[in-house]
Formats: sequence, structure tokens, C-alpha cells
Amino acid sequence: MRISGLAEVTGTSVATLKFYLRKGLLSSGRVTSRTGADYGEAHVQRVRLIRALTDVGGLSLARVALVLTAMETPGLRRTDLLAVSQLTLTGDGSEAETEDPGAESRARNWLGARGWRIDPRDPFIARLDRAWDACDAAGVDLTHERLDAYAVAVERIGAIDVAAVPAEPEAAVRQVIAGTVLVDVVLQILRRLAQQHVCLDEDSGAPPD
Amino acid sequence: MRISGLAEVTGTSVATLKFYLRKGLLSSGRVTSRTGADYGEAHVQRVRLIRALTDVGGLSLARVALVLTAMETPGLRRTDLLAVSQLTLTGDGSEAETEDPGAESRARNWLGARGWRIDPRDPFIARLDRAWDACDAAGVDLTHERLDAYAVAVERIGAIDVAAVPAEPEAAVRQVIAGTVLVDVVLQILRRLAQQHVCLDEDSGAPPD
Repeated sequence: MRISGLAEVTGTSVATLKFYLRKGLLSSGRVTSRTGADYGEAHVQRVRLIRALTDVGGLSLARVALVLTAMETPGLRRTDLLAVSQLTLTGDGSEAETEDPGAESRARNWLGARGWRIDPRDPFIARLDRAWDACDAAGVDLTHERLDAYAVAVERIGAIDVAAVPAEPEAAVRQVIAGTVLVDVVLQILRRLAQQHVCLDEDSGAPPD
Repeated sequence: MRISGLAEVTGTSVATLKFYLRKGLLSSGRVTSRTGADYGEAHVQRVRLIRALTDVGGLSLARVALVLTAMETPGLRRTDLLAVSQLTLTGDGSEAETEDPGAESRARNWLGARGWRIDPRDPFIARLDRAWDACDAAGVDLTHERLDAYAVAVERIGAIDVAAVPAEPEAAVRQVIAGTVLVDVVLQILRRLAQQHVCLDEDSGAPPD
């Protein structure tokens, strides 16, 4: 199909597609004339993936480029996949990541007490410290007990995530990298719906109208 | 304290504080001279809250302004609080929110089968449809079984959230509105750490070095 067809099928403007081409997010079509090129199913899939990651996942195009590069790197192991999926967390965390791995850390102490097996240099430990500090600064009472209760629920989520990784390598990459960011959004939505369910249940006992 | 003192205590530049003042996010200090003003503990708390919501929560200043306005509205009920906390979800979802509440919806059918009590006009139903479609588009296999498994874990999270809401109204507002966005970040971080914990546990059985 021509670029106008690709635009129609994916619901994306030709200008946006040309922008993706210039940025190298989308590979060129097969050249058919001096000004025309032919696009196929692989291009449709790629555009849908980019749109899902940007529109729903909220990733910047720079971050989408990192994800796409990782997805095209052959022979990534599951632990590498996890490292790449961390790239997809919004916020760059650059300050946190320069932190001394030997420094006192409330998050590391809590993780140790919980018995989670985490690389002590993992940058997410410093990010958890930062998010915990932000809760304190905002007057959100995130006690150890509350964090422990969340951790029990999130252990189940992590196990579901890992169990959902398929054996076939390309599918695994897609599942882990795109799945981490898109399922974050699904989980945020479910959390708000679950809060409503719990509240309505408790406040009225009556079914919604 | 002077604005320079407020800057020092909160680790925020004077230029940024002046920007917050101009945007009405921060109230003026008590005027002490033609060019000087005095800032107190309430200003420190407010700046910390703004920084937590922007730096860690990833909210835009426009969205922070909505949150602050809601926090200052007297007499908000718990269900109103939940509605406001929805504002804090990244992405505006405007297309989804215009959707016909009577239209066929995979998310509404799934929620119905699950027995969650949700207002059928809730905009998060359309957002869930959109996120689910994005998973399909990105090749992420979000089956009903997988979504059900996530829902069991997220029901626990919703119950922890609701149980953590204090009786005192102002604290409740703070807990629900700031807590929703900041705990989203905590939960995203915990999810990545839990994935790592589950993987290391399964791959090696040995403790990390």
C-alpha cells in the first residue's frame, strides 16, 4: 500500500508517518517510483506499536526509540529484558541513579526485611526511596505496614507478569517491553475501578443504578 | 523566612518559586516591605507537595493546579475524592470520555462478569477499553484469564487504599489525591522489583551476590 493507505489503516496522519520515517522509528517502504514507496503488514504493526506506546503508554518518542532498538536486539536474555523494561518507567530518575549503592537506604532496608531478592545496585531501590520521600513530603502516610500489604499484592502481579512471558524470543521481547508499560496503564485504571468497587460496596451495599 | 530561605529549605530555585507564585500554585507571603515578603511552614509544605506531584508523580503544573483546587474545596465526600483522584491519571483520555455509555464495551462486559460495582458511565471503563486495544495493537497477549488474575491482586490494593483514608477531612483529601498519584509510582517500582525477585528466585535459587 502507499503511505496514504498506511495512514488510513492505522488512523495516523501522513505527516506523522513521515515524521516517524525521518526519526528512524519506521523503516522505509519498498521504493516503487521516484516519489512512491510500498508499505506492508510489518509497517502497520510497527505504527500500531508506536501509537500504543505513545498514546496509551505515555512514552516520549525518544523512549519509544530505545524500546524499539531493544526489541530488535537479538539474543536478549530474560534478565536483560527486565532491565530494558525499566527504561519504560516515566521519569528518567537520573539523580537517583547516581546514588551511592552503599548509602543508607530506607527502601533497601525494607526490601531486605521483606526477603525480596534484588540486586543491591538496582536503580529502582533509589527510585523507591525517592517516591517514599515524596509521599512523606506530600503528607501521604506510607507506613511499613501499608507498604508490606501492597507488596503482597504486587508479588502476585510480578508472578503473573513473569508467567505471561512466552518461550519464543521475539514474542517474549514484545510481551515484556511493551507489556510492562501498557500493563502499568491497565493496572492504574484497575486500581481506580477497584477503589470505586470497594467504596460503593462499603457505602451502600446497593447495586449501582 | 524570605523567599531565598524558602528556596533553600525546599531545594527549589527562587525563579521556580516566583513561577509558582505567578501561576497561583503558591499563595503570596505576608508583605514585609516594598519588595520583601515573609513565608512560613504552610508555604514549605505546599512547595514540597507541588514538587512531589511534579517530580515524582509526573503531573503537569496544570494538573497540579486542579489537584490543589480540589484539595481546597471544603466538604468533598469520599466518592467526590475518588472522582478527583481520577484527574491525576496521566493522559487526558478526552476521546475515550466522549464515548457512548451504551456502546458495546469489552471492558464493561468483563467488569460485569467479574461483579465489580462500577458506575456504568464511569470514564475509566472506556479508558480500559483503550488500554486493552493498545495491548492488542502492541502484540501483548492480555487474555481474560490474565486480566482476572491481575484484578484479584488489584482488589487487595484498592482495599488497602480505601482503608488508609483517614477520618479527618483535610488529611483524607491529601491521602486520596496525592496518595493516588504517588502510590501509583510506588506500585510501578514495586512491580519491577517483584518481577526481578520472582525471576532470580526461579532462575538460580541462589541469593544475589
